[in-house]
Parts: sequence; C-alpha cells; structure tokens
Amino acid sequence: MALSRLNTFTTKSSLFRQQLPQNVKCLSNLILGEPSGPSVKTPIPGPKSKEMIAELNNIQFANTVIYFTDYNKSIGNYIVDVDGNVLLDVYTQISSLPLGYNHPDMLKVLQDPDNQRTFINRPSLGLFPGQGWPQKLTSSLMAVAPKGHTQVTTMACGSCSNENAYKAAFMWYRNKQRGGAPITEEENNSCMMNVGPGSTPFTIMSFKGSFHGRTIGVLSTTHSKAIHKLDIPALDWPIASFPRYKYPLEDHIEENKAEDRKCLAEVEEQFEKYNKAGKFVAGVVIEPIQAEGGDNHASPEFFQELQRITKKNGAALIVDEVQTGGGASGKYWCHEHFHLPEPADFVTFSKKMLTGGYYSLPEFRPQQGYRIFNTWMGDPSKVLLLDKVVEVIKRDNLLSVVQASGKKLMDGLMDMSKRYPQHLKNVRGIGTFCAFDSSSVEKRDEIVAKLKEKGVQSGGCGDLSLRIRPALVFQPYHADIFLHQLEKVLKKIKTA
Amino acid sequence: MALSRLNTFTTKSSLFRQQLPQNVKCLSNLILGEPSGPSVKTPIPGPKSKEMIAELNNIQFANTVIYFTDYNKSIGNYIVDVDGNVLLDVYTQISSLPLGYNHPDMLKVLQDPDNQRTFINRPSLGLFPGQGWPQKLTSSLMAVAPKGHTQVTTMACGSCSNENAYKAAFMWYRNKQRGGAPITEEENNSCMMNVGPGSTPFTIMSFKGSFHGRTIGVLSTTHSKAIHKLDIPALDWPIASFPRYKYPLEDHIEENKAEDRKCLAEVEEQFEKYNKAGKFVAGVVIEPIQAEGGDNHASPEFFQELQRITKKNGAALIVDEVQTGGGASGKYWCHEHFHLPEPADFVTFSKKMLTGGYYSLPEFRPQQGYRIFNTWMGDPSKVLLLDKVVEVIKRDNLLSVVQASGKKLMDGLMDMSKRYPQHLKNVRGIGTFCAFDSSSVEKRDEIVAKLKEKGVQSGGCGDLSLRIRPALVFQPYHADIFLHQLEKVLKKIKTA
Repeated sequence: MALSRLNTFTTKSSLFRQQLPQNVKCLSNLILGEPSGPSVKTPIPGPKSKEMIAELNNIQFANTVIYFTDYNKSIGNYIVDVDGNVLLDVYTQISSLPLGYNHPDMLKVLQDPDNQRTFINRPSLGLFPGQGWPQKLTSSLMAVAPKGHTQVTTMACGSCSNENAYKAAFMWYRNKQRGGAPITEEENNSCMMNVGPGSTPFTIMSFKGSFHGRTIGVLSTTHSKAIHKLDIPALDWPIASFPRYKYPLEDHIEENKAEDRKCLAEVEEQFEKYNKAGKFVAGVVIEPIQAEGGDNHASPEFFQELQRITKKNGAALIVDEVQTGGGASGKYWCHEHFHLPEPADFVTFSKKMLTGGYYSLPEFRPQQGYRIFNTWMGDPSKVLLLDKVVEVIKRDNLLSVVQASGKKLMDGLMDMSKRYPQHLKNVRGIGTFCAFDSSSVEKRDEIVAKLKEKGVQSGGCGDLSLRIRPALVFQPYHADIFLHQLEKVLKKIKTA
Repeated sequence: MALSRLNTFTTKSSLFRQQLPQNVKCLSNLILGEPSGPSVKTPIPGPKSKEMIAELNNIQFANTVIYFTDYNKSIGNYIVDVDGNVLLDVYTQISSLPLGYNHPDMLKVLQDPDNQRTFINRPSLGLFPGQGWPQKLTSSLMAVAPKGHTQVTTMACGSCSNENAYKAAFMWYRNKQRGGAPITEEENNSCMMNVGPGSTPFTIMSFKGSFHGRTIGVLSTTHSKAIHKLDIPALDWPIASFPRYKYPLEDHIEENKAEDRKCLAEVEEQFEKYNKAGKFVAGVVIEPIQAEGGDNHASPEFFQELQRITKKNGAALIVDEVQTGGGASGKYWCHEHFHLPEPADFVTFSKKMLTGGYYSLPEFRPQQGYRIFNTWMGDPSKVLLLDKVVEVIKRDNLLSVVQASGKKLMDGLMDMSKRYPQHLKNVRGIGTFCAFDSSSVEKRDEIVAKLKEKGVQSGGCGDLSLRIRPALVFQPYHADIFLHQLEKVLKKIKTA
C-alpha cells in the first residue's frame, strides 16, 4: 500500500478543490500520532487473526469476526489489526466510536485517580447514585439534549433503551385511558399471569426496513434482515412502509412526494386497523435514517406529517437515534434536520453516546417508582467518558468538522457515481452519515472486501448499500484517502 | 451509634461461640481501612442527600433513591453516604458488588496503564475483538464455568442475557423441528412481518414468583411484583407454581415433598397444554433461589426432577443465576448445590459477574452468524475487572469466607427466630444468600428502615422477606455486627 503517493495524487484531484468552512481549523492535528495513511501487509484476516479466531471459536461462535484488533496501536481514525495491518476505519465499531481510537483526552479521563473509582464502584443508580451524578448528567447528556427535552433516563444499550421507551409509552397511554382512576386489584392480579386487564393489548408501530434492536420486544419492531428475526416469536404489532426514494432526489421530486403520501396513508391505515381492533397503538418508533436497513432516508416533510398523524392518534413518537445520534449528521441529533413542529416524545440513544438511554418529555415520567427500573440503570463510568466527549466535540468544533468532511464525501461520491454508475449509485447522506448502493449484494460485498485489501474498513447495510460511519474526528483529508481508495476499487471492478 | 461497644457485646454473645472452618484465615484484613462498625449521624436520607434527590428529580424520576453515596469514602463492606453516615452494606447495590467498595486490587486494575485503553476503546466484540480476548475469557469466565460448560456468550446486563438465552433456545428448538431441512424463503419472508412460519409460536415456561428481567420478552417470564408488569403487553407463555415451603424444613418434610410434587405436576400439565396447542415450550427458565420474588427456595430433588421433565419434553433448561451466581451461595453457582444429573443447558449471569452473559452447551451454538449478536456483545472492560475478581476470590479463599459468614448468619438468625418469632421467621439461606420473613409487608419495611437507622443497609424482597446480600468479603465478624444491630431493632419492635 504505497499511500505515500497519496498526497501527490489527491492534490491533483478534483476532490481537493472544495473550500473548507471558515470555522474548521487545525484539522490536521485533531489526533496526534495518526499514520499518514493505511498500510496492508497481509491478507485480512491475517495469520495471527486466523489463529485467534480459531481459539475464540472453541468457546463461542466466532465466524463473524473480521479480524482481531490491536487496541493499543489503533489510533484516531486508524484501526490496527494483530497482523500489523493499518486500516482507515469508516465503520468504527458499527458507528459507536465518537472520537476514534485512543483519543488522548479519553485516556486522561482514565488516568485521573479521581475518576478511577467510578469504574470499580458501579452503583444501582435508581437507589444509590453517587455524589455529583445530577451534575454529571447535566454537563453531558442534558448539555446536548434535543431542543425541548428536560428529562433523561440512562440505560445500558440501544435495545434496552428502546424497550424502556416502549414501556414508558405503554404506561402513559394506559394512564390516559384510566383518566385518573386508580389501578385496580384486578389489573394488579391479572398482569402477574400475563393477561388483561393488567397486561395490555397495546402495540408499537414500526416501519419496514427498520432496526430497533434484538431483544424480543424491540425485535418485533425490527424488520431489516430475516436472520435477525427467524425462529423468534413476534408480537402482532402494526408495520407500515418507510419511503423508498428514487435518486438523484432532484430528478424524482414528484415520485418521492407520492412515496411519502403512500407511506403516510399506510400509517393512518395501521392506526385505524389496530385501534379499531382494541390493539391500541401507544407509540410509533422510527429512525431518522434507517441505518441497518440500508440507509433509507425520508424527507423532513414525511417526518413532520408523521408527527402530526401520531399526535392526532394519541400515540407517542419515539425517534430512535441509536445509530444516527451523537453528531455524525453534523448536528447532535439527526432528527433536528427535520424541523419537527414539536419535540419528539422520546429520543433514544446509545453507540456514540457511550451510554444507552432516552430523552423524554415530562408527561412520560413514570407515576410510580420501580416501573422504569433495573439493577444498574446505565453506568456512571460511561457517562464520565461521555462528559469528556461532549467537551471535546465543543472545544474542537467537531460538528463543523463532520459537516466539512461530509461535504467532501458527498461531493466525491456524487462525482464517482457519474463515472462508475453501475457500481456506485443512489448516493445519499447527511454529515458523514453517507451511503451508496451497488448493483447487487455480491458487488456490494466485493467492494467492502476490496476496500479492506486497500486499507479501508467499511461496512454494508441493507441488501445493496455500503455505509460510511467514521468517527467525529474524521477530517476532509481522511475523506480524500477514502475516496481515493474507493476509486481504485471501482476501477478494478469496472475493468474486471 | 456507639459501635465501639460492639466488641464487648459480641464477645459475650453466643454468636461468637461458633468455630470458623480451618481454611478461613486472616479474615480481619481482607479490606484494609474498613471502619470498625457503622456510624449514623443524621436521619437517612440526610440533608445533603435530600438536596441532591430534589436536583436529580428535575431531570428524571428520582423517588426511588435511598440516598446519595460517596463512592470515594465507601470501603469494603461499608457504604458511606454524602451526609457522612457509614452503613454496613448487606444489600450491595442489589447484590451486584463482588468485592465490596474500592477493593485495592480492583483499583490496581484501573491504575495499570496497560489496562486503561480497554476502557476507552470499546469494540464490537462480534467483529473486532481485541488481542488477548480469548485468553481473558478463559482466565475469567471459563475458569469458573459450571461443570460441563465449554461455551460462553457475553452480554451487557441480566435482562439481555436471558433474552438471548431464550432466543438461542428458540433457534435450537426450531432447528430440531426442521430436522436438517434448509430454511425456506417463506420462513425468511414471513418473519420480516412478524408472522409464521418464520416467526414461531414458541414459548418459555416460567414460575410464579420469578424474576428474569424487565425487557418485554423476559418480562413475560417475570412474576414477582405487579408494578414491574402493569400496563406492559405480555406473551401467552406457560407459568407453573414454584414450591412454597413451610419452615423449619425438618418439621415439614412430607408437606414440602407434596409441594414439590404439586409444582412438578403443574410443569407437566403446562408442557402438555402448550405443546398440544402448537405453542411449543422451547425452554424452562428458573432461578436456583427466587430472589426478587421473596427468596423462595426449592429442594435439590425438585430441580433434579425438573431437569428430567424438561429433557423429556425436548426443551432447554435455563438456569438464571443473575442474582444467585458469582459466589454468594458459597459455590460459584448456586445450582451446583443441587447436583443435577447433567449440566443445565443454559446458565445466565450478570450482577456480581460484572458482565452479563450466559454459558451454554455446545448444541446451542447458533448455526449462522448475526443471530445472537448486537453492537457491543458485552464489554471487555467488565471482563477485565471480573478477571481480577476471580483471581481475588481464589487467592483469598472467599468462597470459604462466604461459607463461614453464612453459617454465622444462619445460626444467628435461627437463634433470633426462636426469641422473636412474631417478627423473624422462615429463616433460609445458602452461604450468605440468606433471608427471613416478617409478619407483614409493613413490619418488614419497618425492620429495613430501622436497620438503616442503626447503620445497616439491607433490602426487602417478595412481600414479607428481608434479604441479606453482602459482598464476598463479608466476614463472620461483619455477620456479628449485622446480627447485633438486627437484634436491637427486633427488641424495639417487640416492645413497641
């Protein structure tokens, strides 16, 4: 991998002609010690990785492992495997690393003796929170809360964040139904045996192509890949279509508007059908961009209208920002791009936020204790790390970096989509949260594999899409490296 | 709290007359720097805690908070609140602290620069595990695996450990049904819309009084308190009775044997009913001791017979050791006390194990990738801490400490049950995993509250029970302090 030649190449390339926004400065030293580019020495997985995969496979199913990683050597945007291969990482642990690998400020959090005790005394946060916990929540999660949100609940992961948002929606809906009447003995007794009236027939509406997690409740709202759902019992909950746009958007304005209308009509139909059957729809859950399902985008107008319909039907709008949140869209929360008339009822998060959890409006606070509860209720050590992430994002103006790098990515992909239309199409993205489609699942997988050979770790999503999910420290010159290597791959595929 | 007088008292007390096992040595310095006893200076919660609870309540429901804790000052078996109250902790964050607070060996893990990077580079373990991960699993989780278990899967918490064990059981059961036939297109397509044949009508059998977590799937197998389940949709899954014994056991041998038979007959009936209806029972989930449900014990014979019935019906036995596991029973896994004829199919864990997850027999390995999967699949930093815990348990012979302290606790409680029969009865326990019943929920809550005033943090469970859940560094002299303070409380209640 003669990436030393990259600078010569890219300075001549059209990709470098874009101007950076004025407020993006000092981009070259966001992470000290980064290599100048990827370098690949062995096939991937290399011999050492293969040995370790076999070893791991003795004690658990390990066939999904791509390679073993040297987390001591990985740095910034570069992941280094145990065979010494250095890859530019635009997948970042399924989009879960906000500041890349071994960010010096993150390391300082661990080195501070005052912080170390937080990592070894994990409390039951609902019973015995530690001194300074409200302040830590305020300076981290509340400092970046979506507009209008004053309430936050921490959880361990994305699945349980959604599970608990659904539960809070069910409680809120039933509470409205009760109209102030007290909980009856019959309700208390019946729910213990999983039957009504205590156990409700309520439902959550979800969309085809969605991914909201893998525990059994949220799995009933996940519809991205069969292998996630096969053999597992599922709840009879309403499912509507998510828009599938034609690209480029500017050439298909009317068709895409019609697609919005068709999907919204389905939402209305599902509300009517399920509410009429007594399977009241307590909430509608949706991703701002369907990520696992193939980076499916929908218009701001679609989301605005969805909020109106949801509200009209007395249900809660649950915006799942587990993959989209935390800055990759160039705003802290992707749904902020949609200018919803009112705050979403719930905004769930995990991944780049390091802690799971959800924001919710005050009316969704539980009425009694122990209803939204578990042993740990998240983990203060994750919030301690998030606190530093939020500080660094602000200090280093990383949302502007994302915007600049995203523009560079999108312009480069658009350009390539004209030159390699068979293999790279339907370019779409907000910030660095970008994707394109290939012509088939095989071609897409081939591009991901060949990119790896060229020192770029990317990931697929949906059937045809390659998704780009770099960390927030991914800068325009990293985008150049990515685009340069991608073009090399496409050229080979083209001529093959 | 003049605990300085304690030694005088206890040395005269019968509680000190028991002999310690020979292999328990140096008990007095397992944790350096522990106070000699509790000290309570203010009502609890004190003024500082109250202020912080009000502050936290602005951003989330905070009415369950007992007090804010100073985790820098808490040490060993003693939790210190922000008002300076020092309490002997026999509840330990709902039974989730293996070595108490600020154990010096745990702190060393954090201080080691080689370890610090593990805490800031959280990988997607199913794709990019770090160098040394198989070895770390081997020296921690596999080193204490239940006999016969060679496979382990890590998860984030207890709920998702059970959720994923259920999923693995469903896949295994369906795979047996398929009899080697390939997965059909119809199965793949139908499961995407939550219907059969891809979504199965399979079920998991659970027991009245059980607690297996709070996400929607496992919540359908939880039946300990209505407030956990109210308003949440539930799956129609079979529920059998768990034995409710009469105490003292030696006086009710025949009645308790009849209770076993009655419950096992219900298990058989539920199998027949659900299997006949096509709602095939793929698994039976059970706690070795129903903890949240009130510390309900069942006999080894009950568990042995349950395993036989489960196997006969082609279902998997899932032993939920989330609360019972990790050493509190005096063995690493509580179900090891039952001498099951064969290993349990699944053993799930969390809490004291610091990481969630499950052990399973090889036949439960998924047949394809991405079926038991999520972004993080646990957290190597928790396994790094567990690795040290396992080392310390072995080095300091802590399972013997648990046995000795448990004997001290049980003898003391038995003795008090004779002297305070109205308020302390049905004493039961294995290791330090002990409990007793009071005469009413109000009396039980009064005892928990008064114990707190006397500097002991305990917890309730079920309707009538007080549960004792100390850390593994809880030594016989801590048991003496607990018993001494408990007797003071009972005396007051008696004479009240």
